[in-house]
Formats: sequence, C-alpha cells, structure tokens
Amino acid sequence: MSRRSYWGWGLESDEPTEEQRIQAAERQSLRFGRTLEVPPRPDLDSVEMRAPRMRAPATLAHLLTDDKHERASHSYGKSFRDKLRAFRGQFPNPPDLVALPKSEDDVRAVLEWCDGQGYVAIPYGGGSSVVGGVEPPGASKGIVTLDLREMNQVMEVDPISRAARIQAGVLGPDLETQLRPHGFTLRHYPQSFEWSTLGGWIVTRSGGHYATNGTHIDDFVESVRMLTPRGPWESRRLPGSGAGPSPDRMILGSEGILGVVTEAWMRIQGRPVFRGSASVTFATWEAAALACKAVVQAKLWPANARILDPVEAGNSAGLDGTHAILILGFESADVPVGHLLQQAMDLAKEAGGTIDEASVRVVDNPVETTDAGRQGAVGEWRNSFIRGPYNGNMTMGLGMVGDTFETSITWDRWPDFDRNVRAAMTEALQRVCGGGTLSCRFTHVYPDGPAPYYTFSGLGKPGGEFEMWAQLKKAASDAVMANGGTITHHHAVGRDHRPWYDIQRPDVFAEALRAAKKAVDPNGVLNPGVLIDP
Amino acid sequence: MSRRSYWGWGLESDEPTEEQRIQAAERQSLRFGRTLEVPPRPDLDSVEMRAPRMRAPATLAHLLTDDKHERASHSYGKSFRDKLRAFRGQFPNPPDLVALPKSEDDVRAVLEWCDGQGYVAIPYGGGSSVVGGVEPPGASKGIVTLDLREMNQVMEVDPISRAARIQAGVLGPDLETQLRPHGFTLRHYPQSFEWSTLGGWIVTRSGGHYATNGTHIDDFVESVRMLTPRGPWESRRLPGSGAGPSPDRMILGSEGILGVVTEAWMRIQGRPVFRGSASVTFATWEAAALACKAVVQAKLWPANARILDPVEAGNSAGLDGTHAILILGFESADVPVGHLLQQAMDLAKEAGGTIDEASVRVVDNPVETTDAGRQGAVGEWRNSFIRGPYNGNMTMGLGMVGDTFETSITWDRWPDFDRNVRAAMTEALQRVCGGGTLSCRFTHVYPDGPAPYYTFSGLGKPGGEFEMWAQLKKAASDAVMANGGTITHHHAVGRDHRPWYDIQRPDVFAEALRAAKKAVDPNGVLNPGVLIDP
Repeated sequence: MSRRSYWGWGLESDEPTEEQRIQAAERQSLRFGRTLEVPPRPDLDSVEMRAPRMRAPATLAHLLTDDKHERASHSYGKSFRDKLRAFRGQFPNPPDLVALPKSEDDVRAVLEWCDGQGYVAIPYGGGSSVVGGVEPPGASKGIVTLDLREMNQVMEVDPISRAARIQAGVLGPDLETQLRPHGFTLRHYPQSFEWSTLGGWIVTRSGGHYATNGTHIDDFVESVRMLTPRGPWESRRLPGSGAGPSPDRMILGSEGILGVVTEAWMRIQGRPVFRGSASVTFATWEAAALACKAVVQAKLWPANARILDPVEAGNSAGLDGTHAILILGFESADVPVGHLLQQAMDLAKEAGGTIDEASVRVVDNPVETTDAGRQGAVGEWRNSFIRGPYNGNMTMGLGMVGDTFETSITWDRWPDFDRNVRAAMTEALQRVCGGGTLSCRFTHVYPDGPAPYYTFSGLGKPGGEFEMWAQLKKAASDAVMANGGTITHHHAVGRDHRPWYDIQRPDVFAEALRAAKKAVDPNGVLNPGVLIDP
Repeated sequence: MSRRSYWGWGLESDEPTEEQRIQAAERQSLRFGRTLEVPPRPDLDSVEMRAPRMRAPATLAHLLTDDKHERASHSYGKSFRDKLRAFRGQFPNPPDLVALPKSEDDVRAVLEWCDGQGYVAIPYGGGSSVVGGVEPPGASKGIVTLDLREMNQVMEVDPISRAARIQAGVLGPDLETQLRPHGFTLRHYPQSFEWSTLGGWIVTRSGGHYATNGTHIDDFVESVRMLTPRGPWESRRLPGSGAGPSPDRMILGSEGILGVVTEAWMRIQGRPVFRGSASVTFATWEAAALACKAVVQAKLWPANARILDPVEAGNSAGLDGTHAILILGFESADVPVGHLLQQAMDLAKEAGGTIDEASVRVVDNPVETTDAGRQGAVGEWRNSFIRGPYNGNMTMGLGMVGDTFETSITWDRWPDFDRNVRAAMTEALQRVCGGGTLSCRFTHVYPDGPAPYYTFSGLGKPGGEFEMWAQLKKAASDAVMANGGTITHHHAVGRDHRPWYDIQRPDVFAEALRAAKKAVDPNGVLNPGVLIDP
C-alpha cells in the first residue's frame, strides 16, 4: 500500500500527476485572469531537517522511529497553511520521534518515558486537524508524536445494545469495514472521514453524518478509556447517567491535553434500509434558511437538512447560481420514513420552496444490499463531499489563498450574522487579495440555530500567502466572534483558534480546566499550548 | 400563602389532617397485619436547636435570616430519612443562617462573605434532593444555605430560536406560568416538578418529561451562568459548539460544589397540539422491555415510552397484577404524530403486545386550548405522578421503611440486571423487615439501554427505621453497582450516594474535578463533601 502523502490529502498515490497540475494551473489562470506558474514538485530528500534531539531508549526502540518521512508527515495537520508549508519543505520544528504503539501498554510506556523526561507528547489520530491541533509547540526539549494507527480494531460488538468497543486509532473506512459484517455502522462521516480516526473525532468533538439530533460524535459515545500520566480514566458503559459532571464530556473536546484516548464504547446504528430524500429550491438564501428552521423546529430529525447558498448550489448541485437549495434526507434501519419526508416537504413548501419533483425518492421497502448507505442522493452527496479535500492537492502552490470556517449561531441572530460575516469577508478579500469568492452552506441545524460553514478563496501574491491567509483568517474569526458565534462548531480549537477561543470560553472555566490538566498531567507534557497555556 | 412544610412534601397546607393520618394508619395496619400507632404531630416549638454560630454583618442583614422555621426547612432534602428526621424533630446540624438573595449581586455578596469567613455555603433550589445534596456537612465554623427562591423570573423569551433566559430559583409551575403567555413550555417535569427549581435541575442533571431523546435537562441547556468565588462562569448562547470540553457540561451535575447557578438560557418548546397515545399490555415484564427496546431503537422518539411491571401496572394502571404495560405517547407543536404512534404500536405488537384499543387516542387536528399539556392519558399520568410525593406525608412516622432507587443499564445486561437486583432486594427486605414489596418501571429509555426505577417498602421496627433503611439502601446500591449500573440516572449523588459514586467515577477524573473545584473555590466553602472530598 502507498504511504501517506507528507504534504497532501491522502496517500502518495493521491498526489496529482504533472498533467493534472498543469491542467489545474490553466483552470485557475483562466479564473483569475493571470498566468499562474506550476510550482516545483515537493522533494523531501532536499529538505534540511533538524536531527532528532533524543534517542529512543532500548526498551522503546521498537515503538519509536526517526524516519524522515514520518517526521515530516507528523509535523502538521491539513489546514491550508499546513499543506503549503509542507509542500514548500518548511519543517523547522518536526517531532523528534514518532511512536507507533500497538497496544495500550505501548502507549503507557511511551507516555511514561515522555513524562519522566519532560518531552512533549502529542496524541495523533489521522492528522487531519485544520487548527494546528497536532503541530508541535515552539519551545521544547524534545517532541514525540504518538500515532495510534496500529490500534485500529473493533474489539467487541454488542448487537443487543447496538454498541461496539473500538480502538481509537481506527480510520473511518476501516471502522465501517469491520462493523459491516455485523450489520452495523457508526454512520459518522466528517469530511475527513477517510483520514481521521475515532480517537481524533472524540477529542475534537467531530461533526458527523447527522445534520440534526445526534450531530457531534459526543452523542454516540457510551464510554471512553483514556490514558493519562496519572493513570487510566475510564467511564462505565451506560446508556445515560446523572452521577456528577460527565467524565466523558470532559474528554470530549480535550484535544489531547489530558491524555491519550485508547478506546471507546460507541453507540452504533443498524444499516439504513428505509430512505427518503428530496431537494427543494428557493428564490433566496433567507427563505431556504427559514424552511430549514421550520423542519428542525418541528423535530422531524432528518439525517440530512442542509442548505446551500446560490453560489454553492451552482457549484455543487447544478443550479443556476441564483437559487438556494435545501437537501432533505431521512433514513431508518427499522421503519419506513416516507411520511416524515412528506411532512418536511410540506413545511419547506409552506416556507416558499419549490419541490424538485424529480428528486423525490422514497425507499420504503427494505433494500437487499450490504451497501445501502451509498445509494441515492444522500449517498452521492456524501461521496463528492468525502472526495472534496483531494481537489486541493492539484492547486497546491499555485498561489491561491483560501480556507473554510464554520460556527453556529442562534436563529434570532442568524440573518444579521450572515450579513455581517459576509460583509467583513468581502471587505477582507478585497483588501488582501483584490477580490475573491465566498459561499456558505449549513452543515448541521438545531431547533435553536444553524451551523453555517463558509468557504472563501482569493489569489495571493507569490511568497505572501501565509501573511494573507492570516489576515483573512483573522477577519473571519473576528467577525464570527463579534457577531456572537462560536469559534468552532466542529473543527476544534488547536493552536490556530486560541486567540478567539480565549475570548469565548469563560475565564473561570479556563482556570478549572488548567487545574484539571495539572492534576492529570503534572509535568505538562501532553500537547502543551493547545486549548490552554500551562 | 401557606409556608413550606418543614418536614413534609409541599406546603403546610399539604400536611395531612388528623383524620387522614388515622385513616392512613388503619390502611397500613391492615396491609401489614399489625396495629400501627398514629405518631404525635411534629411540633417545631418544642425542638431544641443550636443557636446560630454567627451573625449577619450589617451589610447583609437584609438578606440573611435565622428564623427557626427557615433553618429547620433548610436542614434536609426530602428523602425518606430526611423527612423522618424532620418529622421527629431531629435537627442537630441546621444551617446557622438562610440567605434569600433577590439578585445576582446579593448572591455575590453572600458568597464573598462566606468565602472570606470560611463558612460553608450551600446552594439551595427547591430542597427536593433525595440524596443529601443540600444537607450541611458535619464539621464547620458556620453554615449559610443560599435559597434562590426570590430569583424566579423568566427574564427574556426569544420566540425565534425558541429559547428563554430564566433565573435559577424559579419553581416548575411558576416557570410554566410565565412561559405560557408566550406560547411556550419547557416541558421538564421531574416528579419533584412543583418543588424543585431550574437551577436545581441543572446542577443535578434532572430527568424530565421526555422518555427518549432529550431525557435529561442537559439537552435543553443553551448556556448557563454560575457565580463562583473566583468570579462568574458564563457560556455563550450557542445551538451547538465544538470549542473545547463544554463549559456547560461541567456545571451540569456539579451539585453546587463549583458555584451558584444564577440563570440559564434554556431551549423551550412550542406547546404541543398534536398528540397520540396508547397503552399496550404484555404477558410478561420481559416482553414489555423488548417492545420498549424495539420502539426506542427504531428512533421514533416518543415523548412517553414507559413500562410498568405487573405490580406497578396493578397499582397505577388498573391491570390485574399479572400483566405488564407499555404506555406510548407522542406529541408535537408542529406536525401530526399519528403515523409515529402507529409505527410504535406495530413494533409493540410484533414484540408480543396486545394493544388496548380503547386507549388509542390521536389528536391530529390542532386543539384550541392553552392547557393542551394536561389533556389525555399522558396528562393524567403526569398529574398522578406529580401528586405522588404527597402520599408519603400521611404515612410519615407510622414505622414503614421504604425508598426508590433508579439507574441505567445497557440492554445486553438488562434481564440479568433486573433478576439480580430483585433477588438482592427481596433477600434484603426479608432479612431486614421480614418481607416487603418491590416493583419497577422504566422512566427513560435509550437505544442502548433502559433507565429502570425501583420502589420498595417494608415495615420497620419502632426506632430502628434509620438503621433498617441504611441496610436496604446499601443492598440496593451494592446490587446496582455490582451489576454494572450507575448509582444514579437522575437523582444525583449528594452525600448519600458517595460510597458508590466513588467506586463508579474514574479515580483520575475525581482528581481532575477536585483540582477544578480548588481552582474556582480555593477555600472550599461550596457544598463540601458532596461529590468529592476536599
């Protein structure tokens, strides 16, 4: 099997060919009306990299590697800035060693060594962080990145309770492959699905397949086991509890600063066989949002209830660029869902929508297939969604500056929020790039508000991309915070979101979290600087 | 208005008449085949009570009282043991002073005084704790109970997002009365509804009206504001977030050890106008549980999906004592629910149930009434449920020993769990009381398991009730823990559940929580001994 690309999304075999890169340059040159040069291919051999500052002790030598490709691959996550730095061979602060534990005992041994020596230990799942969540901190004696990819097994399936005990290092597709023979699925599809892990989803409060009701991975966690320098932290398997603050909810979102999640009991799903989906178009973005609100406030709990603004609807759904679209999807492993779809369509129509009659699809007889999750409009959307990040590989280094940002906001603030954020970003794109594109969709919706997801891009000045990106990111984050949103609905905080997270989270809570970290990680070796300062 | 009873459930006007007490004694004498004496009426005037150990400073004198009735009323919660101690006039460790703040500034002033002087500060909502959650600790310099009953207003309603900002001290009925003119309801009905508060629900992770999906108050919290000795801890209003561990989820279940919750933004509901309900009988308790599992795993999300075992079905639902019953209820403010009820009935039938055709009730045309929440089978059940705690007032002091305990467990363990817990309690009742009664219902159900609720009672030996109760409580808690349950699904931990909670919660988590408390309450004045030791 091909290795992971040390700079791009996916495997080395997913890196673009020369021809693809040339074609991408031609497309973007047309788009921006300026000739964009195809940049040189990355070449790791020519990269100078700091020698490891320490050696593995003999007892751990079999678990630790100083292989250059591994160290480069573990230097960054996959944000715009991360990929561009890697593409350009900028690795001033790589991990000194990468650990590849095969068992919890291995994790414990590596963690003890780091704790004893004062080396930074960075828990690492799929490395898909877009917020600097796995990037080593500036000052350190030594850095060990703990990659859990060898701990990738479904250990037990409980078909009665519909739950499974799963190792934290499993990637999305491998997890689904192991659940499938049992007739189950986790149905958690973040856009990073292929290259992110259960453990990563848990510590970043990943957002998944369900647009309503169970949106975050949080809702599917039955119990978690985490190793800390002070010992294991494991909750009981329970369907619900009221015994003190939830121990699991303190791990969820902890981003590796409290310990290394090694496994979890997860609530799994019957594979859906009943389905219903439809798309509804709207003359305005505002009307589409009101329809979405009506559906979610009626608590019909669709699996999909996403709206795309006219720009995104034009790009991804074949619309004319002046209409917004609402994509509705219901699914069940147990009961027909046609009547729920009908109720949702009725509400969308009342809100001014036009049902695309050709799109209405109801499967109310169980389908005999092991691959039912991939059928229909929802499945198509899912596949193109999952393939999205690969597109960036082809345009890498052409000089474009772009990113996405996501948040959530209560409905009462929504229309103003959107107007203000768009105004701020339009101004910033003009100021920084002389123009650019900006679009929005909802990824998840709640009875009390949506989770909007914005995408922007413009053309950078050669060599100025990082500074330009920083200015755009700041404009976006400032606007989100000033208008009452969260700095992240499901991308996590990491290092990149810290300035705004520090405004958002209650100061007294930060003191409590800092003290809690100190109690379980007294030497402060775990992912220092992420979420809080020591 | 009548004052609160210092020993019974509700107001002084809810205390039984002499005639009611005599009739209750006759009924129980018949039941146990032994003549039970009507005990003397409680008389607070004759109770010796320790003088307050400190005086209110002049600046706080208007907020603090040393009134004997207030001090007695705030000495205990409302567990079996609490009520009996109060009934018998046993008040060895009352709060020295009771604070009645009218504003957050008042709370802050009282808290600062306690913090500065090292007095214990006990946040107090409705005082309905059945786990020793508001009982003063043994050793202290002085005790101030902070009763938030004067902070009882709905401050803002956001009809667009369906959310409201509400002060923590509001009792259930007052909250509903204030939301009703806006067309909304919180729809959170713990059995303590009349005499418990929003703040109490939040810090104890109260279980409410919804049997599935949004079971705990946790799910309806949009943001919380809590005063700690180190300052306010307030989250942003957000429909969802992934920015670090949830600050709200650390307050939820904190039982007053981190601060005093003063207000919260709560997700509210449209008043239901569409309804569907039905009851289904089963030849066995086991079959009823399987039906319940099928309905909840199909994610139909009924508001009510409660099963009663044959004993409870005989007592509360008029069945013959050999059949179990499943009560199904669906409701919506926005869309008809008849088809969901039909799907649930179909699943229950498949699982061996007999639909009680006369019970099937579907209201699929909006009902013109402001009081729709009180109609139908669900409403009837709710009213008798809410009245339940008053019954105990009449039998108080007759010598019976009884209690309830509740938990949750995954489905794979369920039938064994129930068998083992019943065996342990039957043995314990025989050993301690020479026999007794034991029954079970489900209060909430999840796709991965039920939340069973057990009720037991037997006859005590005069003067031996406390020791006998302790033995029965220990037998119940030991059995729950040994068989994999939680020590509490929604009754909280307090002081009474500590021995078992200490087994249940991860040790490392307890260290983190202790450190977090120390950070926000450095002098350890807030509810010491609840959840964790200093």
